[in-house]
Amino acid sequence: MKTRVEEHDIIVLIDENLRKIIVDTNGKTDKIRGIGVIDPKTLLGNEYGKKLQIGNKQFWLLVPSVQDKLQGIYRQAQIILPRDAAHILMNCAIEPGQTVLEAGIGSGSLTIALASAVAPTGHVISYDIRQEFIDHAMKNLTQADLTRYVTTKIKDVTTGIDENGLDAVILDIPNPWLAVSHAWVALKIGGYLCTYSPLISQVEQTVRTIQQHPFIECKTYENIQREMIVSTHGTRPSFEMLGHTGYLTFARKVTTL
Amino acid sequence: MKTRVEEHDIIVLIDENLRKIIVDTNGKTDKIRGIGVIDPKTLLGNEYGKKLQIGNKQFWLLVPSVQDKLQGIYRQAQIILPRDAAHILMNCAIEPGQTVLEAGIGSGSLTIALASAVAPTGHVISYDIRQEFIDHAMKNLTQADLTRYVTTKIKDVTTGIDENGLDAVILDIPNPWLAVSHAWVALKIGGYLCTYSPLISQVEQTVRTIQQHPFIECKTYENIQREMIVSTHGTRPSFEMLGHTGYLTFARKVTTL
Amino acid sequence: MKTRVEEHDIIVLIDENLRKIIVDTNGKTDKIRGIGVIDPKTLLGNEYGKKLQIGNKQFWLLVPSVQDKLQGIYRQAQIILPRDAAHILMNCAIEPGQTVLEAGIGSGSLTIALASAVAPTGHVISYDIRQEFIDHAMKNLTQADLTRYVTTKIKDVTTGIDENGLDAVILDIPNPWLAVSHAWVALKIGGYLCTYSPLISQVEQTVRTIQQHPFIECKTYENIQREMIVSTHGTRPSFEMLGHTGYLTFARKVTTL
Amino acid sequence: MKTRVEEHDIIVLIDENLRKIIVDTNGKTDKIRGIGVIDPKTLLGNEYGKKLQIGNKQFWLLVPSVQDKLQGIYRQAQIILPRDAAHILMNCAIEPGQTVLEAGIGSGSLTIALASAVAPTGHVISYDIRQEFIDHAMKNLTQADLTRYVTTKIKDVTTGIDENGLDAVILDIPNPWLAVSHAWVALKIGGYLCTYSPLISQVEQTVRTIQQHPFIECKTYENIQREMIVSTHGTRPSFEMLGHTGYLTFARKVTTL
Repeated sequence: MKTRVEEHDIIVLIDENLRKIIVDTNGKTDKIRGIGVIDPKTLLGNEYGKKLQIGNKQFWLLVPSVQDKLQGIYRQAQIILPRDAAHILMNCAIEPGQTVLEAGIGSGSLTIALASAVAPTGHVISYDIRQEFIDHAMKNLTQADLTRYVTTKIKDVTTGIDENGLDAVILDIPNPWLAVSHAWVALKIGGYLCTYSPLISQVEQTVRTIQQHPFIECKTYENIQREMIVSTHGTRPSFEMLGHTGYLTFARKVTTL
Repeated sequence: MKTRVEEHDIIVLIDENLRKIIVDTNGKTDKIRGIGVIDPKTLLGNEYGKKLQIGNKQFWLLVPSVQDKLQGIYRQAQIILPRDAAHILMNCAIEPGQTVLEAGIGSGSLTIALASAVAPTGHVISYDIRQEFIDHAMKNLTQADLTRYVTTKIKDVTTGIDENGLDAVILDIPNPWLAVSHAWVALKIGGYLCTYSPLISQVEQTVRTIQQHPFIECKTYENIQREMIVSTHGTRPSFEMLGHTGYLTFARKVTTL
Repeated sequence: MKTRVEEHDIIVLIDENLRKIIVDTNGKTDKIRGIGVIDPKTLLGNEYGKKLQIGNKQFWLLVPSVQDKLQGIYRQAQIILPRDAAHILMNCAIEPGQTVLEAGIGSGSLTIALASAVAPTGHVISYDIRQEFIDHAMKNLTQADLTRYVTTKIKDVTTGIDENGLDAVILDIPNPWLAVSHAWVALKIGGYLCTYSPLISQVEQTVRTIQQHPFIECKTYENIQREMIVSTHGTRPSFEMLGHTGYLTFARKVTTL
Repeated sequence: MKTRVEEHDIIVLIDENLRKIIVDTNGKTDKIRGIGVIDPKTLLGNEYGKKLQIGNKQFWLLVPSVQDKLQGIYRQAQIILPRDAAHILMNCAIEPGQTVLEAGIGSGSLTIALASAVAPTGHVISYDIRQEFIDHAMKNLTQADLTRYVTTKIKDVTTGIDENGLDAVILDIPNPWLAVSHAWVALKIGGYLCTYSPLISQVEQTVRTIQQHPFIECKTYENIQREMIVSTHGTRPSFEMLGHTGYLTFARKVTTL
């Protein structure tokens, strides 16, 4: 394992408020949000795990984990949060070696989680109807060093899916019910469909469409995360809490009901 | 992809209440809970994705996913539920190729989730102080076809950790604070410590011990899962709900604070 | 304050599992669920606050509070739980002296809470379309010694409300939206409408109907109650938890929007 | 019922963001937060339930309910929110005619809820060790027109309680366990003790102290409130959510365990 930053390393800088900045030491002198103008080459040779002074701020220097990659992405739209991505990976039984499709790509947050989970032998196909979202997500995937596991397509998933034998199809689009029959065709037997929707009415239309196809194990969940604050005074749940992200619906392809 | 059950296949049978039975077609005629006495060879040649009549019950026949493996385990103690395993995998940034340690092994539920996530090139080391728990967990790992990714040890993790450079150390023991300093030594720089505890007092002792070591990003979470019931009458949260599983504390090794 | 049970007292017996039995000492020898056949007169003279041996069981003896009355009712249908009744009282700003209408009466659980809150000078009017529910609820109200504050009517609230100038109208019926315009007419200016519905689709139809009338402050809430278990081992949320009761929608009458 | 504002009326003005301003029409020309300088007399004669133009803003004009009084208070510290006050009233079985003690008074929020519930024949005694908190709370009680139901005392409740035969004692102080034995003495038989604490360690010390006294029905709850947003697009839980307020512990006095 590397102990010091070497050429071509991608690193993460973590400040004292735990904000994360991912830096490609191979890059050119550039303005980096939260740091200022910096030549990444000046970071070479620094020791991983230690604190580093850059300008008037201090940063811990680490090799980026998937968590860092997810937390360090540039957002341009509402993203699927890591807590929901965690449940998608688990409930869709994502494993190394699988081929999975997601639509749309958003900022590439779920794409990073999926690509990390199917690597090194699997692959993620990602549809989006907006070129600018694909471009934005690819920047985040490049920063996360995961582009080799991802193929993007400008395509509306409600018009059909080109691939077949897929291990999972994950839909983060406003009208997932329109892609349910395409997903059924594209999935392998036993493969998982997942949809992510903030509204109950979306869940209802999706579940009703799923029920008209040979899917089993159709379940809808909401995941609520509470942070516990442990201080010297004592322990309590955090006052700050996100009240809702989205509902996750899962189902699994069979051939007869 | 296989369309019919072949020799040596491990299969999952899912009944109409979604109970899952994992069967090794290579096994001998045996009594299987929920089916009765059956010669697994009689299942060969059946078509995946279809329904199968066995005795007076019907089962869908599928190739088991990680989910099936987790849901099909034989429990002998309180297990870490898949919903919490999902957060452990995500917040510890578990990836293919990593080496991770867990203690204790319990029924092998988290072991299955970890082994699936680090395969095919990674490895799980699992400590437990009770031989019978290791034996029981190994049966579940055998059924899940994951033993090649797991090494077990009869060892009390509070007395020390033999390995080093670990990507993650996950503690599901009553007194995780006693293993925090061993975990720090055994982890790689940037590696993750995770503890799972049902009680607030356990969380407090653990967090206070973590704070005395060079760990950053120390956070404690509780994950609450609500199922939504979508019926023809309308949609509502399930009346049935598990009120609590455990608190998950995460932290990450650095070398200076 | 009375220290011993006197003639005509209504008392509550609380067993060691905190189950509550309300007994009218004025009643005749009868079989009482959880006690057996007993002549209530034999309880006279016992000291409040002390434990009492009846048969082979022990009971604390107290003057019943509203809580006891609510917990001691005989249920014949799903009831509005005290936790939701509490929010109804607060969000409808129920006070001594008010006149409030509820429909339907159910087992009389909310009726007891309302009657206790508007007493001694206020009144509760309760509609139900089923005589047997009214009869059952009146038994619970009699036991709670609150009948003088309650008037019942066999009437379908969706066909109209006879009263006017009401401080609050509370609807626990399957189709509350059909009574929204009647409630608007029957309420005083500034009076509160409340509906209790388990399903999202009921909430949606109700809120949309409310929005077509001069109501302000229309809000929908779900109340989730977690019990914390404090034991010598430590503290944690209870594993047992009711996942859902119902959604509470509140709105307030004005004359112009 | 009044249809127009008359002399001596206390009124509530509700703006389009549902912010509430309580105005005593008897008061002098003054600067009112959210309105500007106004002579309350100019509001006389306006019609209740209608919208009123004041300066460049519009307000609904109503007779204030308890809810308005609670929402219109001036806060100077963390208050007990109406949702928690609702549970205190219910679980302490507060009724018209009772005598209850609270300590400390805070901004008078719970005092308003208690006074409204015990009126017209009951009374609230409120201890606080800080004169400025009592003064501030009394302003809110005056605005709520409830001072005749409240007696305040500068007194530390952990040093003792002067009153006895109380229906309920409610403690919102940092160290409620120090007042548990005083509360036991001051309560009537069957009376309720309630403590409100944000931290688990406070709950633990309180519960352990309660368990050393003749109290039954000792329970601790946390109430979580979720708002549901119903829009033309569909329905979902609010993204905004308060993650924690405090734990409520209840217990009830008996004379033998």
